[in-house]
Amino acid sequence: MLIVPEREIADLMTRDAAFDAVEKVFAAMAAGDAYNFPVVREAIGHEDALYGFKGGFDQAGLTLGLKAGGYWPHNLEKRGIINHQSTVFLFDPDTGKAKAMVGGNLLTALRTAAASSVSIKHLARDDASVIGMIGAGHQATFQLRAALEQRQFEKVIGWNYHPDMLPNIEKVATEAGLPFEAVELEGMVDADVIISITSAFAPSLMADHVSPGTHIACMGTDTKGKQEVEAALLARAAVFTDEVAQSISIGEAQHAIGAGLIAETDINQLGAVINGTHAGRTSDDQITLFDGTGVGLQDLAVAAAVVDLAVQKGIAIEVDF
Amino acid sequence: MLIVPEREIADLMTRDAAFDAVEKVFAAMAAGDAYNFPVVREAIGHEDALYGFKGGFDQAGLTLGLKAGGYWPHNLEKRGIINHQSTVFLFDPDTGKAKAMVGGNLLTALRTAAASSVSIKHLARDDASVIGMIGAGHQATFQLRAALEQRQFEKVIGWNYHPDMLPNIEKVATEAGLPFEAVELEGMVDADVIISITSAFAPSLMADHVSPGTHIACMGTDTKGKQEVEAALLARAAVFTDEVAQSISIGEAQHAIGAGLIAETDINQLGAVINGTHAGRTSDDQITLFDGTGVGLQDLAVAAAVVDLAVQKGIAIEVDF
Repeated sequence: MLIVPEREIADLMTRDAAFDAVEKVFAAMAAGDAYNFPVVREAIGHEDALYGFKGGFDQAGLTLGLKAGGYWPHNLEKRGIINHQSTVFLFDPDTGKAKAMVGGNLLTALRTAAASSVSIKHLARDDASVIGMIGAGHQATFQLRAALEQRQFEKVIGWNYHPDMLPNIEKVATEAGLPFEAVELEGMVDADVIISITSAFAPSLMADHVSPGTHIACMGTDTKGKQEVEAALLARAAVFTDEVAQSISIGEAQHAIGAGLIAETDINQLGAVINGTHAGRTSDDQITLFDGTGVGLQDLAVAAAVVDLAVQKGIAIEVDF
Repeated sequence: MLIVPEREIADLMTRDAAFDAVEKVFAAMAAGDAYNFPVVREAIGHEDALYGFKGGFDQAGLTLGLKAGGYWPHNLEKRGIINHQSTVFLFDPDTGKAKAMVGGNLLTALRTAAASSVSIKHLARDDASVIGMIGAGHQATFQLRAALEQRQFEKVIGWNYHPDMLPNIEKVATEAGLPFEAVELEGMVDADVIISITSAFAPSLMADHVSPGTHIACMGTDTKGKQEVEAALLARAAVFTDEVAQSISIGEAQHAIGAGLIAETDINQLGAVINGTHAGRTSDDQITLFDGTGVGLQDLAVAAAVVDLAVQKGIAIEVDF
């Protein structure tokens, strides 16, 4: 039994490793070699916490297990620790024995950033030069850092409901040697790639804020009721997702589906594009949209990658379990 | 983060501690202080394994977490390890941080035995003297050992589909200084308490194999389709269970409910008897039947108890996670 504590993840895990792990598991999902289990998510009636399990099995990568944890909204104010708390447990698919336990907090940020990054690699125009950020919280910095590695971006523009948070993403742009400009939502028409990463329950980005040829990654909506972009935008776009079942129920597509603007069959798996069984973007004018809902297999994939790295570097704690 | 490996459980955990933990959590469930999460159970398409998660939260005992694992049918023959493999993970309900990891194999046997034992304490006649066992596998030995502590039994009778396994339970009887007799199913009319612990998909114990005043614990049925006793027996009995939702869907009561012989409202929580909000047995002639389906909260309760014992004895492995 191997243990990789949360404090080791930052030094061990690279964006490259997270990208590779997520790209591979999206491909495996689309090929039918990997699937996610039903998600358990419970408001436990204590500390206002949401707690649950996201599990899955990747027969291609032989990764089996779950992420357990959730959201404790008073952690920061009461205890000075982050509100999102999660742990990944990996099992040996040959025997059912517990195999590894890995801190899941930073991994969750990295795997979410990797998902939009994989979507940009496979769906954005090659000549994309302006990236727009909607949302400027902690997660947004991970998103932007990963995205900047996918194209030769020349400029970052950003909007946030609370403009005083924009320096978070400006800092990432500056570190990458890129100019940053704060814009109104209408200003997103200048972007070739847009990442939306908010916890909103009403759309920020409207269909007419988006130019033809743009790729949009909607990364914030993971619950019934949340919404980041106007439903009409999905009707204008070629829509892709990590998992169709989640996209239509708890993802951004729930609203366009609910309003009858698109059908479930209009939504394609990003993994199919990776595998070459779906063409992906078919013209420079097409709007592509990735509905990133977040699946357990992503967590298992990056956790398995970090365990390998920890073993290579002699950092994994071994317990005779 | 505390770790209690499987190999330590046998020396740490006592039947008394398992009994107390299970009795308390059944009481908390019936009082509305503890609840089980939806069960995830997946045939993963690898090694013919069934894998899943049983989680829950006990607000009274402040126990939060899950048992993960399942059934790997080729483990024993291929690798010499047991087919049931599980691990219990406990979380701190105040913060969401992982708190303990505990080997779940022996605990599963002990918590299952404790459940029927709790039912015998609260539902069997005080003067019960003959106990009948249906099933003589590994689990049956745990069941019988725990049951013998609840009444002054004078004799053990047993039946198994494969009679060559009966020495398993005869040995337990002999150790307790009690005579053992192999019987046909019809012979169960002599029993005051009957424990059924098989994996059958058709009833063994029929209604006319049971005398008035008997208490029956049906411990084997935990899946749609499985059945140990004739459905008509439930109509003759006062029926109790660990969790009504499981009893009617995957427990022994699924068949009596399906046939319209009893209604969901005829089934009572054993915890209500423990709490004194249900009278339990009301006459010496009444047949009582406990449908033990097995809930995640039982696993969490015994795991929390064994962690306490491990800490007291200085055996828990502490990992800075």
